[in-house]
Amino acid sequence: MKYSFKNDYSEACHPLILEKLLETNLVQQNGYGLDDYCKSAEEKILNLINSPNSKVYFVSGGTQANLILISAFLRPHESVVSASTGHIFTNESGAIESTGHKVHAVETLDGKLRPEAIQKVIDVHQNKPHQVKQKLVYISNSTEIGTIYSKQELKNLSEFCKKNHLYLMMDGARLGHALTAETNDLKPEDVAKYTDAFYLGGTKNGALIGEAIVINNPELQTEFGFHIKQKGGMLAKGRLLGIQFEVLFTKNLYFDLAKHANSQAMKIKKSFVEKGFKFLSDTFSNQIFPILNQNQIAQLSENFDFYVWKKIDSEKAAIRLITSWATPDSIVDEFCETIKNLKN
Amino acid sequence: MKYSFKNDYSEACHPLILEKLLETNLVQQNGYGLDDYCKSAEEKILNLINSPNSKVYFVSGGTQANLILISAFLRPHESVVSASTGHIFTNESGAIESTGHKVHAVETLDGKLRPEAIQKVIDVHQNKPHQVKQKLVYISNSTEIGTIYSKQELKNLSEFCKKNHLYLMMDGARLGHALTAETNDLKPEDVAKYTDAFYLGGTKNGALIGEAIVINNPELQTEFGFHIKQKGGMLAKGRLLGIQFEVLFTKNLYFDLAKHANSQAMKIKKSFVEKGFKFLSDTFSNQIFPILNQNQIAQLSENFDFYVWKKIDSEKAAIRLITSWATPDSIVDEFCETIKNLKN
Amino acid sequence: MKYSFKNDYSEACHPLILEKLLETNLVQQNGYGLDDYCKSAEEKILNLINSPNSKVYFVSGGTQANLILISAFLRPHESVVSASTGHIFTNESGAIESTGHKVHAVETLDGKLRPEAIQKVIDVHQNKPHQVKQKLVYISNSTEIGTIYSKQELKNLSEFCKKNHLYLMMDGARLGHALTAETNDLKPEDVAKYTDAFYLGGTKNGALIGEAIVINNPELQTEFGFHIKQKGGMLAKGRLLGIQFEVLFTKNLYFDLAKHANSQAMKIKKSFVEKGFKFLSDTFSNQIFPILNQNQIAQLSENFDFYVWKKIDSEKAAIRLITSWATPDSIVDEFCETIKNLKN
Amino acid sequence: MKYSFKNDYSEACHPLILEKLLETNLVQQNGYGLDDYCKSAEEKILNLINSPNSKVYFVSGGTQANLILISAFLRPHESVVSASTGHIFTNESGAIESTGHKVHAVETLDGKLRPEAIQKVIDVHQNKPHQVKQKLVYISNSTEIGTIYSKQELKNLSEFCKKNHLYLMMDGARLGHALTAETNDLKPEDVAKYTDAFYLGGTKNGALIGEAIVINNPELQTEFGFHIKQKGGMLAKGRLLGIQFEVLFTKNLYFDLAKHANSQAMKIKKSFVEKGFKFLSDTFSNQIFPILNQNQIAQLSENFDFYVWKKIDSEKAAIRLITSWATPDSIVDEFCETIKNLKN
Repeated sequence: MKYSFKNDYSEACHPLILEKLLETNLVQQNGYGLDDYCKSAEEKILNLINSPNSKVYFVSGGTQANLILISAFLRPHESVVSASTGHIFTNESGAIESTGHKVHAVETLDGKLRPEAIQKVIDVHQNKPHQVKQKLVYISNSTEIGTIYSKQELKNLSEFCKKNHLYLMMDGARLGHALTAETNDLKPEDVAKYTDAFYLGGTKNGALIGEAIVINNPELQTEFGFHIKQKGGMLAKGRLLGIQFEVLFTKNLYFDLAKHANSQAMKIKKSFVEKGFKFLSDTFSNQIFPILNQNQIAQLSENFDFYVWKKIDSEKAAIRLITSWATPDSIVDEFCETIKNLKN
Repeated sequence: MKYSFKNDYSEACHPLILEKLLETNLVQQNGYGLDDYCKSAEEKILNLINSPNSKVYFVSGGTQANLILISAFLRPHESVVSASTGHIFTNESGAIESTGHKVHAVETLDGKLRPEAIQKVIDVHQNKPHQVKQKLVYISNSTEIGTIYSKQELKNLSEFCKKNHLYLMMDGARLGHALTAETNDLKPEDVAKYTDAFYLGGTKNGALIGEAIVINNPELQTEFGFHIKQKGGMLAKGRLLGIQFEVLFTKNLYFDLAKHANSQAMKIKKSFVEKGFKFLSDTFSNQIFPILNQNQIAQLSENFDFYVWKKIDSEKAAIRLITSWATPDSIVDEFCETIKNLKN
Repeated sequence: MKYSFKNDYSEACHPLILEKLLETNLVQQNGYGLDDYCKSAEEKILNLINSPNSKVYFVSGGTQANLILISAFLRPHESVVSASTGHIFTNESGAIESTGHKVHAVETLDGKLRPEAIQKVIDVHQNKPHQVKQKLVYISNSTEIGTIYSKQELKNLSEFCKKNHLYLMMDGARLGHALTAETNDLKPEDVAKYTDAFYLGGTKNGALIGEAIVINNPELQTEFGFHIKQKGGMLAKGRLLGIQFEVLFTKNLYFDLAKHANSQAMKIKKSFVEKGFKFLSDTFSNQIFPILNQNQIAQLSENFDFYVWKKIDSEKAAIRLITSWATPDSIVDEFCETIKNLKN
Repeated sequence: MKYSFKNDYSEACHPLILEKLLETNLVQQNGYGLDDYCKSAEEKILNLINSPNSKVYFVSGGTQANLILISAFLRPHESVVSASTGHIFTNESGAIESTGHKVHAVETLDGKLRPEAIQKVIDVHQNKPHQVKQKLVYISNSTEIGTIYSKQELKNLSEFCKKNHLYLMMDGARLGHALTAETNDLKPEDVAKYTDAFYLGGTKNGALIGEAIVINNPELQTEFGFHIKQKGGMLAKGRLLGIQFEVLFTKNLYFDLAKHANSQAMKIKKSFVEKGFKFLSDTFSNQIFPILNQNQIAQLSENFDFYVWKKIDSEKAAIRLITSWATPDSIVDEFCETIKNLKN
């Protein structure tokens, strides 16, 4: 079997999670997220983000988190602004539209939304009430193409949104990776401070399943449980989510795992750089997009699996390599050795 | 801590599941249900129901299964007929209506739908196109109040539905319990034969999470994956579902666990019967509804937790007791002893 | 051709409306309800109901009014309480559910909702967030079976709704008939005072099409135009609606027409009473439901069309007779004569 | 009052329509589109398009027609491809998304969709089931910017759609204008032959309200009435729509009116051309987009109303001028004279 760099959810979960599942297995608990573990995990998260009035809700995946948050926050005539690379725009099979809301896509170079781009969307939707009303800005951090937001960029977005009565929501499926990237200057509490809601992704960072939704804006917390239930996101055994996040947010495990993934990606990136390769975008988290020719792609494919991401020209293409909390040093070493020996 | 008879999802999962999770933890697998375990679990289920052309899909919970199935099967103007005790009618926070469909509720004595009752709903909706068109019949087995369908009853429903161009769908959150009840005469293959779709519940029968959806009607299988994805039900680590159902459908574990739950309930039922108590309904699966007076309820509550289900008169109420795959003999013995010693 | 008593929309419109259409035909006007006639009609209505801060919006029909109002007012997890005879529950092909909301049906004897019945719905939906949250009470006046609300009844409902944070909305497809019934004690300003929103039906009272929606609760007026547009209810030539309501609310025409319809119905009712017939319900507006035997029904059917409404027993049935603004005296006289001469 | 060239719905309706409304006013008819006039109008339309198996349905406006057709035709995971100028994408306040469906926008130079552009949308949505499935192609003829489809272009689209299992639907809010443009080579029967569904717009071509939907694909006709009713589009007095289309499709009136509008626009266009002005797009129907400088725009604005459509540079902008069935010769002459005398 080839080792796969296709994504960061190819393995199951960090062993400490299984250990805790074993340990608590027969303890009786309340259902639907009212168990002790969910409570404890919420406390740990609120403590981490230093935002005692935020509320935490656990759901099983990213698409579910996105569709529940957006449909709960918006009135029927309100819409979402997203980068055209945004997960909700291209990779969720119309989940947001299925709840009745339009998603405006903004073309970007690096997957990141900026105030000017959002302003342009607003400007061309002034013919009220014949056009939808923009009400929520959706960003991902790290983005779907591996880039991250700086503190200043997030602050700018936050101020722009407040001024324009827009909610700011962050898809944090890979927030751990963003916050531990070497170029990052955002702290967890900044995320809580500058967004109305965000989530801390578990699925792509060592959990079996689960995203921890954090709602910071008190008016958006109202009756949020109804929306989770109605959209099929409320697990009878919510403990499964609580236990995992309790483990992940004990002794910094969540960030240690993300940092590991990032550093494995950076080792591989370094090997490509040293060999003179270019990249589709300059990333510092756990996704890299080196540009290779077909022959080189074939050589790498002999022992490793990955996605060919984007055709560059008749000869070259960018590939996508994703590392994870579970990517072993030995594999990375072997892969870097292969890069070193790539022939033209 | 009091022992809780409130539901059958108070504990986590059967130890064999955790064992298999440990064993497979670092094996790399494809995401989104395309892993080896999902494939193997599907094979075991299709084999069990002797229905090679059926298709199996795994989702995390019952409300999710219901809303995905129903919204995938119906056109916008089509509606569902359910017993008024049906989970979709009363306990899913409007999940079905949220996907755009009306649910007609039929009052029943025992939670079971019969052709005559469905016919009445059709009869009063003949003013086309001013009234919705009935297209799907939703039943639960065992029902939300512990009763089960006989083979003849299911066959009758199936024939009625075929004749009236209605889909027949079975919510099997507790199908294991139904199929192992002492009064049951339905086999798994009968369920596949007589329904267009059903699911085998895992959450209430020893899994951490998960329901195994089985679609028997080929025309309803078309593009079903899109609906799972769009409604947020497609887990990146689908392996978590595949592994559990693979374990549950190995060596009859699924039915052994359900039978255990039923037999614990029947022991308790026997104790009530011997003491002369009456019941709200005569059930043979893992839910019983004995009628007690307030004083007796108080005595039971000293050491055990359960729901007071329905007020009968100023003095008496029916309580609901649910046993599970995990209910230990020692607790049942202790509880039966308490019943024996109940004072008026 | 037999004369039809089947409904109150068999003819087109009052001649004064056509006259005004002719007179204004080539005057250029703004589209989408921003024309002079809509403005003038709004003023006349606000003046009539003595509620200067209410807002008026015109749409083409009752189902459209209902679905726009309800979907604009509710968040996704909120539901509507209606009488089981309510138009939204049985005669709109699932329009409300299509916008995502559950409608709870309450059985009533006379088509009228009362606080105790609503309270019961709330009482059985206390398992939050597993059950929908009741947020809007829908009533029709006159009701679908011809009965009307007294001032005290409406006041009671209003107080109950305020206390329970429920919106109160009145379907006024036949509000003109209700307010001019001989037993009525409600004034137009009472309707504005006691409801959050209501509408004055034009279609069934002399207009070609059109219902005048009035929103009294200021928080519900916000951005309402978006909802009309999104649901396809905003006419480019809104003038067609404005002109009609301007005519109807000039010199009391709206109420004169309704009173005419009522009085024709009451003449027919009197004939049945004098002949000793019973009625399904005792109504004073433009719908009556006399109970006849099959032979008598056949005699009436020779020269008149009407619906056989409800089977009473093997011999008898209630028929529904509806009169309108256009029902001529000569026809009523002829019909009363036929009643007089009915043989057993 | 300035004369307005802002749109083609500033006046009410052609006098023959009012005449027929007067003539039929008190004739009793069945409701909900089952009247004699709707039947007769359907016959005339089917005759015109030479498509006896098509079905005709009347609704009140374009947004309503679009949302009913699209939501009736698509399953939940299916999407629509439209030009980015398409009415459904920018001017219907999210109506299509409100019914649950994504609209893909394609940038075009002239508002017209071509197979290659649609193919590109399909190509980037191959990651099934994580991306929506394209199922319907929406085009407008004439387009929102006044251009029209040739017979060959429509044929190409039709063949592409059939090959790719896509429905082809034409928004014909201004189909009369398209079919009577001097450069047009499409016949009414071609539209029926090459599309699955289309509509003949009345509102913008001399009717008070109304669009005549024509469904050619028999499988899409099934139970269509339910969708009209559910979405609030079924008028009790459907006669209002039937009468108008009966008049419009008697003695070629529909096309005479459209031709009049076009020819008025062409006269104005000629004046601009003779004076040396350029246009945003080269149109031959009733919309023209001449490019003027600010000073010239001010001169035209003295006596005429119109929209400034698009900024070209710091000095120049394109204006939109729309003529209609009602635009008088005297006004056009006056306007052309003003153009002739425009100073720089």
